[in-house]
Amino acid sequence: LSRPALPPEIEARLVEPELAGEFSEVERLAVHAAIAQRRDVRHFIADRELDESALQRCLEAAHRAPSVGLSQPWGFVLVRDRQVRARIRESFLRCRAREAERFAPERRDHYLAHRLEGILEAPLNLCIAVDLRPGDEPVLGTTAQPEAIRASAYCAVQNLWLAARVEGIGIGWVSIVEPRVLRHELALPAGVEPVAYLCMGYPRAFRSTPMLEETGWGRRKPLASVVHPNGRWVDSVSAAPTRSRA
Amino acid sequence: LSRPALPPEIEARLVEPELAGEFSEVERLAVHAAIAQRRDVRHFIADRELDESALQRCLEAAHRAPSVGLSQPWGFVLVRDRQVRARIRESFLRCRAREAERFAPERRDHYLAHRLEGILEAPLNLCIAVDLRPGDEPVLGTTAQPEAIRASAYCAVQNLWLAARVEGIGIGWVSIVEPRVLRHELALPAGVEPVAYLCMGYPRAFRSTPMLEETGWGRRKPLASVVHPNGRWVDSVSAAPTRSRA
Repeated sequence: LSRPALPPEIEARLVEPELAGEFSEVERLAVHAAIAQRRDVRHFIADRELDESALQRCLEAAHRAPSVGLSQPWGFVLVRDRQVRARIRESFLRCRAREAERFAPERRDHYLAHRLEGILEAPLNLCIAVDLRPGDEPVLGTTAQPEAIRASAYCAVQNLWLAARVEGIGIGWVSIVEPRVLRHELALPAGVEPVAYLCMGYPRAFRSTPMLEETGWGRRKPLASVVHPNGRWVDSVSAAPTRSRA
Repeated sequence: LSRPALPPEIEARLVEPELAGEFSEVERLAVHAAIAQRRDVRHFIADRELDESALQRCLEAAHRAPSVGLSQPWGFVLVRDRQVRARIRESFLRCRAREAERFAPERRDHYLAHRLEGILEAPLNLCIAVDLRPGDEPVLGTTAQPEAIRASAYCAVQNLWLAARVEGIGIGWVSIVEPRVLRHELALPAGVEPVAYLCMGYPRAFRSTPMLEETGWGRRKPLASVVHPNGRWVDSVSAAPTRSRA
């Protein structure tokens, strides 16, 4: 099994566990900054292709996600074909129209004013899928919680997103699309399910705040409203209304 | 809405989008290193409490995960009570016994030889739960893919895990536990579901390779076996057997 290629200074640390524990102050802050500055990007520089080695490093990061029982159940489908992407975008438009109807009239126009995808503008679309087909034996750790397989694939999404951020690559997650269209267009076999349809490219900018906050659609909650410090869930008075309506 | 506290040098970058795009070479490599060196930890230094400010930074990182429609549907339940943890560990033992029976006799002892949790040894257990209860209006982006709510909570797990790694804190994910026990012990209301039960503490070591690879239980797949470069899923000959049996 070939070890994936990483810069030599990282590889060297991987084989010495006692050194692997040490992150410098600059390195520690870099990870917090990447997490804080990750954004859902919908505006891409249209004609700028992804750097191939940066893309490889992003895929490597996704592939290093935790996985239940070391199952690594994900697959990364790279979608460049414009006709395929155009058909997927048609599904987006159908879903958006359907979703718009669910909002009260005074919110509907606001909803429709948001740019919610960059499917054709981004140089690359990437679908992360999860392989749920049973193998020769059970996957360790999935008997009590079969959903742990899917969980692993979602962790891969977040790894990819953070790695992309420090490579200067923006990612936008399109959940407004029909899974059946993705299954068909990407030839997913029965038992392989799409978990995230992502647009990847160089962004026109990384926003300082999430778009939905910037436009007044929603607000971020204070951390304290989602922390339950005493071992029991306690519904906060402020949390529920904040979630659904800003 | 109070802005969460981050070091001033990060805060300064958050309000200047054009600077936010720049990560230095050291910072870029730090994120890749954190991703590569994250491990599922099951051996903790038993009597060492978590640094409270480091824990806050980890929770902040989790809370900065992407969320569909800015829903931030997660809750973080901190579990310190030893009796509660002991009962949760009893659930683990039941689930492990049940799972062991699913393996062929020659694999069963190997399965049982693994240490798969650090529930009582770790100074803190943390359950990330997801609030699936409907609010006053639909959550933007969930009509076609209602599972996007759960996806957001899983991304929070991965943010927490990476932030913990650079804080020198180890995390172990226990999926071998009954959700009904978690619901009961943590008083989760109907519609709030546990997504990840995590043990957090200072690790005795960060392994250079995943434990299940080190013990010969499984092997990591080469990246190429999970990348589908031409827009269509193609089953690789080597991938399926590698997943279920090393």
